[in-house]
Amino acid sequence: MRRIAESTVRRLSLYLSFLEEFETQGTDTVSSEALALRGRTTSAQVRKDLSHFGSFGKRGLGYGVPQLAERLRSILGLDRRYRMVVIGAGKLGSALVQHRGFSERWFDVVAIFDNDPAKIGRALDGITILDVGRLEEYLGQTPADIGVIVTPADPAQSVADLLVATKVRAILNFAPAQLSVPHDVALRNVNLSLELEALAFTLADY
Amino acid sequence: MRRIAESTVRRLSLYLSFLEEFETQGTDTVSSEALALRGRTTSAQVRKDLSHFGSFGKRGLGYGVPQLAERLRSILGLDRRYRMVVIGAGKLGSALVQHRGFSERWFDVVAIFDNDPAKIGRALDGITILDVGRLEEYLGQTPADIGVIVTPADPAQSVADLLVATKVRAILNFAPAQLSVPHDVALRNVNLSLELEALAFTLADY
Repeated sequence: MRRIAESTVRRLSLYLSFLEEFETQGTDTVSSEALALRGRTTSAQVRKDLSHFGSFGKRGLGYGVPQLAERLRSILGLDRRYRMVVIGAGKLGSALVQHRGFSERWFDVVAIFDNDPAKIGRALDGITILDVGRLEEYLGQTPADIGVIVTPADPAQSVADLLVATKVRAILNFAPAQLSVPHDVALRNVNLSLELEALAFTLADY
Repeated sequence: MRRIAESTVRRLSLYLSFLEEFETQGTDTVSSEALALRGRTTSAQVRKDLSHFGSFGKRGLGYGVPQLAERLRSILGLDRRYRMVVIGAGKLGSALVQHRGFSERWFDVVAIFDNDPAKIGRALDGITILDVGRLEEYLGQTPADIGVIVTPADPAQSVADLLVATKVRAILNFAPAQLSVPHDVALRNVNLSLELEALAFTLADY
């Protein structure tokens, strides 16, 4: 695992999204000040973030937009596409599968799994929902890069164990559960209830 | 704003969810070790987290489950309900409105807004979708605690400005945009693309 702070990675992702906007608008060069302004940070921060990865841009001339975008895509691992499996075809899982932002970028949902007989066999965005009992068999035959867990809390750990056993190296977990995975598996948690509870805490008077 | 680390608040939220499980199971007392085990942390951490808020439990006897749960609900601001407005009735917004976890806890969606004439007037989970042009008027008459922004990036800042102007003090933002809000407004961002990009970064070889 490379030792780049997560906050740096997030800013690089943001810079890339701005650069891609500039590309669409036909802008050829951009200054660190312009990137900083869009990202609500400082130009010193922008230059520092980019300096981790070698020398970019020319003093006084700014950065070449397509060149910097291409370099950031490569640094961020966004010069290829990723195969995602989604486990859980409830409301949130369905919304994620149909999230245009994913496929427009680098993430392709290749399969969806559920344990509900009423859902299995139905199609979601053109992809047939499969029996979660077939997850291991499926991944054994057609490996995936990223597993997205959108199940209730209870089955989440066993789903994660199955993903890990079938060589999935990155998991995005929406289940309200603390998952345990080996150190070489990347795990990110999005817990919507915890986000709201954190807001409630700031609103609370005690 | 109270100076409790966000990581502490998150752990308190987790402890509360475990305590509520224990309550359901009829368990009367729980040790810091048991809470630590469920939360994948240490009993020393549990005791430290709880010590911020005064003395709980008795040495050797553990914590009273209902008492500690009630105290945590109060600390976390979860002894009342919060009124949420959701702006954006797309796939993700609709999934959030129908998220059972929210209403089971402390968060009630009181209104949904969109700018799409095809959606305005339709009902989502029994709540009629209103014209976003009426957001300011609505909030002027019926204040809300939390605004949930599930729009595309472009209109997100102007929606946030409207929420702030109508005294919404907490915003949960799903739009892929960096929002600017006054210091006394709590803002949390959930950017699903950034989460996936962070995973891609760990998968990348460069």
